[in-house]
Amino acid sequence: MLHIPEMFEFKVKKKSNKSKARLGAFKTAHGTIQTPVFMPVGTKATVKGIRPEELTETGSQIILANTYHLYLRPGHKLIKKMGGLHKFMNWKGPILTDSGGFQVFSLGDSFGNRGQIAKNKPKQKLVKILENGVEFRSVLDGSKHLFTPEKVMEIEHDLGADIIMAFDECPAPDSSKKYTKESMERTHRWIIECKKEHNKLIATSGQIQALFPIIQGGMFEDLRVESAKFMAGLDLPGIAIGGLAVGEPREKTWAMVDAILPYLPENKPRYIMGIGTPEDIEEAIKRGIDMFDCVLPTRLGRHGSAFTHAGQIHIKNEKFKTDSSPLDKKCNCYTCKNYTKAYLRHLISEKEILGVHLLSYHNIAFLHNFVLQIKDKIAKED
Amino acid sequence: MLHIPEMFEFKVKKKSNKSKARLGAFKTAHGTIQTPVFMPVGTKATVKGIRPEELTETGSQIILANTYHLYLRPGHKLIKKMGGLHKFMNWKGPILTDSGGFQVFSLGDSFGNRGQIAKNKPKQKLVKILENGVEFRSVLDGSKHLFTPEKVMEIEHDLGADIIMAFDECPAPDSSKKYTKESMERTHRWIIECKKEHNKLIATSGQIQALFPIIQGGMFEDLRVESAKFMAGLDLPGIAIGGLAVGEPREKTWAMVDAILPYLPENKPRYIMGIGTPEDIEEAIKRGIDMFDCVLPTRLGRHGSAFTHAGQIHIKNEKFKTDSSPLDKKCNCYTCKNYTKAYLRHLISEKEILGVHLLSYHNIAFLHNFVLQIKDKIAKED
Repeated sequence: MLHIPEMFEFKVKKKSNKSKARLGAFKTAHGTIQTPVFMPVGTKATVKGIRPEELTETGSQIILANTYHLYLRPGHKLIKKMGGLHKFMNWKGPILTDSGGFQVFSLGDSFGNRGQIAKNKPKQKLVKILENGVEFRSVLDGSKHLFTPEKVMEIEHDLGADIIMAFDECPAPDSSKKYTKESMERTHRWIIECKKEHNKLIATSGQIQALFPIIQGGMFEDLRVESAKFMAGLDLPGIAIGGLAVGEPREKTWAMVDAILPYLPENKPRYIMGIGTPEDIEEAIKRGIDMFDCVLPTRLGRHGSAFTHAGQIHIKNEKFKTDSSPLDKKCNCYTCKNYTKAYLRHLISEKEILGVHLLSYHNIAFLHNFVLQIKDKIAKED
Repeated sequence: MLHIPEMFEFKVKKKSNKSKARLGAFKTAHGTIQTPVFMPVGTKATVKGIRPEELTETGSQIILANTYHLYLRPGHKLIKKMGGLHKFMNWKGPILTDSGGFQVFSLGDSFGNRGQIAKNKPKQKLVKILENGVEFRSVLDGSKHLFTPEKVMEIEHDLGADIIMAFDECPAPDSSKKYTKESMERTHRWIIECKKEHNKLIATSGQIQALFPIIQGGMFEDLRVESAKFMAGLDLPGIAIGGLAVGEPREKTWAMVDAILPYLPENKPRYIMGIGTPEDIEEAIKRGIDMFDCVLPTRLGRHGSAFTHAGQIHIKNEKFKTDSSPLDKKCNCYTCKNYTKAYLRHLISEKEILGVHLLSYHNIAFLHNFVLQIKDKIAKED
């Protein structure tokens, strides 16, 4: 592995004395990420409807892209040929790619509510879990594909993100303990293979990429602890928590996080996958989580909903028809500085692209500002 | 009428010695428009997918909005209540509103190819031409509406654009001479009523709006000349040519323009409605036309097509799959400076909003630059 001094170093700058929250900085080749950090999702190499410079303007430091989607189209080889994901999509900051695991598994099990890809598809036929990986059929053309730890590392290496996630199995939240344990053990075997392949690939290419392992263990505290210990022992530059916020009640989510926290290394960034409402972000930060991602800001934007300090609002509501106030009076984003609810309501009602853009932009800015306020409070603690 | 010195004054700054082209400046309350000028269309109070500041950045000086669409939704009264169209949509430059005539008539006759609103609708039932106006049914809810010259002036007054178009009848290009003459005479009667109502309204409100009459006469030179003389005689601040580029061959279009040109006042801006390809714009400028509008740049953008110096291209073409060059190497717009054809192809193939935005942005910038180059040549003539 190419050794760059301080690369992927995580510095804890301050710890809260009111909770487990901490302020940190994580160094990557495309810039240092100030944590806690919310990462907007750019599934198909674009955060839907937002220019890269606008993302920066909202306060985005790092964005996510989905390996599964980019593998299917336009293909990782094409993106590699075009100079990698950063250049392809014109995003100059850090990028994190997931491993495709969540998407692949959501084809085959009970993630119906989150795994939109699976809807109206005969479930069992789309995915088959093998010991060495997962066989699945493309929802685009029915073609057969095999994701193994090696294959996923190859794809993520070609995409060239700063942080790449290990290939894991994400069991459904209602899985039996027996199945969850088997699945977790597979994930443990897979990370070893991921690490080996990752080291081999970066040694050849000289690419500067950090591999993050993903803690699994479903809804079972003892399995979670076992997985946390295992992943922490790998001494990789960061550590992620997967398989949560997948439909289970939030008490369960936080119970799992609380259970594993003592086993997470202090000097590595901790990333909880798929967390995204203001409430959940606040809870995660309090528990010592440093990174989180969610499609919510842009998905809500496309559906005409907006985060506000008074809660989520749906702009098509009749009461906003002649409302000349901004989405959120306390928000200072481009949308709130320039547009009224009445105009945004008109745009969304008419299915105008600008409406989706303005709402998505606001929602991303809102979450970043929300995190900033929490960080600010911690910074000001005695 | 409120008298503001020099308001709506049109100054011809230079005339070409190679054609009838001219460089001019038209003063409005929201800024002076340098002509010839291409006006992007913001049908529903938004140029689809583009922020107002971005429009300015592409070189847009004035934009168009459609009275018919805004009347139906969100309604002119609502827009008036929100402070008028400029404030509602956050566009600080001049705006022109059409009269709704074209849209209303495209519900009822043979404009199938342009009047998309009419598609799959029983034609005759949607619109009924009366001597005092046009009765039509809303395609949204079937409700009955009546557009008269007075009503249209009221709507355009409430919208508050800088330039407002008179209510006219736009006959189908294959109409008989008899029908075209009757229709033209109706349009002539209507402009008198428009002018009267307009003067009454602005006298009360103090709004600074210029009314432009529209020359009709179909595909008949003598009728066109009659209409041109009539409209020129009204001494309004500008003059428009309607009912062209509606499906007829281009030789016919330009024959009509050439026929009426001698009768158009020198010191008024001349606006040809619905003209928008680079080729047509060049022809129009050569013939002494100062203003033109078209939905083409954004419509093409939504369909994945782009203007280039080498002609129109469709980005989904297989040959652009790994093309790392910009849409147009000679173009200096944001899209061309930052994105490859390969990425744009990916975005459009995946139906990503950003793709529509980037292509639409380029197409608008391309047309403005195209006009700028023509203007530059005229400016440099001896």
